[in-house]
Amino acid sequence: MEYKIREFNLPKLNGISQKQIETHLGLYSGYVTHVNLLREQIAELTETDADKYAYAITETRRRLGFEFSGMRMHEYYFEQFENGSSVQSVTLDTVLSGKYGSWEGFIKHFKEVGMSRGIGWTVLYLDNVSQTPHTAWVTDHELGHLAGLPILLAMDMWEHAFMVDYTPAEKAKYIDAFLANINWELVATRYEQASK
Amino acid sequence: MEYKIREFNLPKLNGISQKQIETHLGLYSGYVTHVNLLREQIAELTETDADKYAYAITETRRRLGFEFSGMRMHEYYFEQFENGSSVQSVTLDTVLSGKYGSWEGFIKHFKEVGMSRGIGWTVLYLDNVSQTPHTAWVTDHELGHLAGLPILLAMDMWEHAFMVDYTPAEKAKYIDAFLANINWELVATRYEQASK
Amino acid sequence: MEYKIREFNLPKLNGISQKQIETHLGLYSGYVTHVNLLREQIAELTETDADKYAYAITETRRRLGFEFSGMRMHEYYFEQFENGSSVQSVTLDTVLSGKYGSWEGFIKHFKEVGMSRGIGWTVLYLDNVSQTPHTAWVTDHELGHLAGLPILLAMDMWEHAFMVDYTPAEKAKYIDAFLANINWELVATRYEQASK
Amino acid sequence: MEYKIREFNLPKLNGISQKQIETHLGLYSGYVTHVNLLREQIAELTETDADKYAYAITETRRRLGFEFSGMRMHEYYFEQFENGSSVQSVTLDTVLSGKYGSWEGFIKHFKEVGMSRGIGWTVLYLDNVSQTPHTAWVTDHELGHLAGLPILLAMDMWEHAFMVDYTPAEKAKYIDAFLANINWELVATRYEQASK
Repeated sequence: MEYKIREFNLPKLNGISQKQIETHLGLYSGYVTHVNLLREQIAELTETDADKYAYAITETRRRLGFEFSGMRMHEYYFEQFENGSSVQSVTLDTVLSGKYGSWEGFIKHFKEVGMSRGIGWTVLYLDNVSQTPHTAWVTDHELGHLAGLPILLAMDMWEHAFMVDYTPAEKAKYIDAFLANINWELVATRYEQASK
Repeated sequence: MEYKIREFNLPKLNGISQKQIETHLGLYSGYVTHVNLLREQIAELTETDADKYAYAITETRRRLGFEFSGMRMHEYYFEQFENGSSVQSVTLDTVLSGKYGSWEGFIKHFKEVGMSRGIGWTVLYLDNVSQTPHTAWVTDHELGHLAGLPILLAMDMWEHAFMVDYTPAEKAKYIDAFLANINWELVATRYEQASK
Repeated sequence: MEYKIREFNLPKLNGISQKQIETHLGLYSGYVTHVNLLREQIAELTETDADKYAYAITETRRRLGFEFSGMRMHEYYFEQFENGSSVQSVTLDTVLSGKYGSWEGFIKHFKEVGMSRGIGWTVLYLDNVSQTPHTAWVTDHELGHLAGLPILLAMDMWEHAFMVDYTPAEKAKYIDAFLANINWELVATRYEQASK
Repeated sequence: MEYKIREFNLPKLNGISQKQIETHLGLYSGYVTHVNLLREQIAELTETDADKYAYAITETRRRLGFEFSGMRMHEYYFEQFENGSSVQSVTLDTVLSGKYGSWEGFIKHFKEVGMSRGIGWTVLYLDNVSQTPHTAWVTDHELGHLAGLPILLAMDMWEHAFMVDYTPAEKAKYIDAFLANINWELVATRYEQASK
């Protein structure tokens, strides 16, 4: 099994330029390539001499979290822009208002977590055990995930996600642009799948 | 919403002592307590002065991944011992043999990842997009997860999981004991839920 | 004691624009501000109710490594450009050739480590116990340091260090530009201080 | 250059058993072995095919921080017990009282940082730029160091450091035992070297 680079059917976005998206898609494809490369190199070293290279094999495998999550998080990200922005669904509004007081309360909270210092992701999960949504910060692509929880919304806060269009001091503008382009129907579909 | 400490109905285990389990359950309950405490302190600081304490609030929130995943991973862990060990199911055998050559190939691979240096977890996930199982090492409770993937099997490799019974130099014995006590029917149920 | 924002007397650089440097200096000043803020908020919470806020205090303190190292690494970085580029010193050449075969061997190695995936720093340390130089990758500003070792050379590989001038795909060009502007006499002075 | 396992001339300790120390020294020797092994495997892969294995080489090298700092931190640790406990020196008392109010204030603070959740180290550094001592928590051996700062005192808070003698719930007792056995004259010598 080899992972394939997904194609995304993206509309013109508000506040996120075509050049920004192209640069970003180039980085995404690198993660797919490196998930496959990581697995290939482990397979080759194992075949060559599994005992001799046991240490290098283990330490290469340790990076699966970075490469795989780098790949998958970007797939969540770009997919959210497909088919263009839409208004929030009734279901999502109910669920998120239940936790954050109102839809506006959720948006305010999500933005605040997005302004966390450092680079990484802001992620809205559903705890499908307690049926509670949680918003968390993840450093890099893999450091800090809520274990096992399905992901409803993923905002890339690496500098490469916005520095074609904005300086780091302007990252609040990028967050506004990100939220303005979300297809909330897709997020609602993820919620329905997750809450089963 | 407040998280509650789960009770586990555990049989007598082979190679893992009652004292070891009690020590470990005590640590688990600490994670539940601290998920709730983290959320309480954020709420209190927000109410007291959200602007003044914005930094402390953000940096406290950053630890949600550690506390929540510490709680949830231990729930996966103890639940796996409930109702006693069982043989692997036909479904699991087919799926894991497809990736690792045979059931024995999977067990060998899982043990190797378990012997990774440092402390953390060995985790079997299902990539529910590609329907491929992956085994990964997670440092601490939250560093290195495969983003968004459901968890099928979770082996605690923190020193507290075995040092009542074994020294760190004997950790391979603990891994054998862990695997000897698994209720594979539960793991198969998780697989069925995850692959939908 | 409060940390002060250092002023750097920087010449015009080759391949690194004035706008890039200004953006970068702005980020540096944020680290100084946040080292002080972190300490202030801990002091205030301790004074308000040290027992009640013990958890928030500890979790805020945990970020000292990020903020302090973010501040200090940038001080190493900008200082290296002061007074303009210079040729390598005889002492440094001898020490680094002893480890990496030749000066060119060192430069090649340093560039390779610089091309590591992810964001962070490439750091040349001196192990002052064994008098051996080591080149290591540090993620973020604080993840992966060689404990206690003095730093001889620090190259910022966060995307903010080059994305005003280059895309992430062009980061090798930034590395060349970085090395073309180094005042190696300063690096030699750091070596002399470190090797005492 | 190959790193050698250091021998420590340790007295009988109060509250830390001989079996605990032997288990711990065994783990220390593993870090020395793995620093050397990491460098060997990188050299072998580079010689075999540097281009083909570029990824595995980089990802193996990324672990140098863990192995090297694991080695060096344990050397700081055991060395602190050599020649037996001693009272604090006048110099150290002055420096630490200047930051923490009194010697007792420093000890209280150091213990509090030691009780941070998770495993790692509590480290007293000297910022030799501002001549200010800082106490910080380091996760694992390498995550969170204050960049470039010399180390004055290092307390191992991995579970392996105390679980032969204490349960995790009793870790405050281990901290007391650790502090009761410190040769503060050595710490003062480190301070004198660091403050030059």
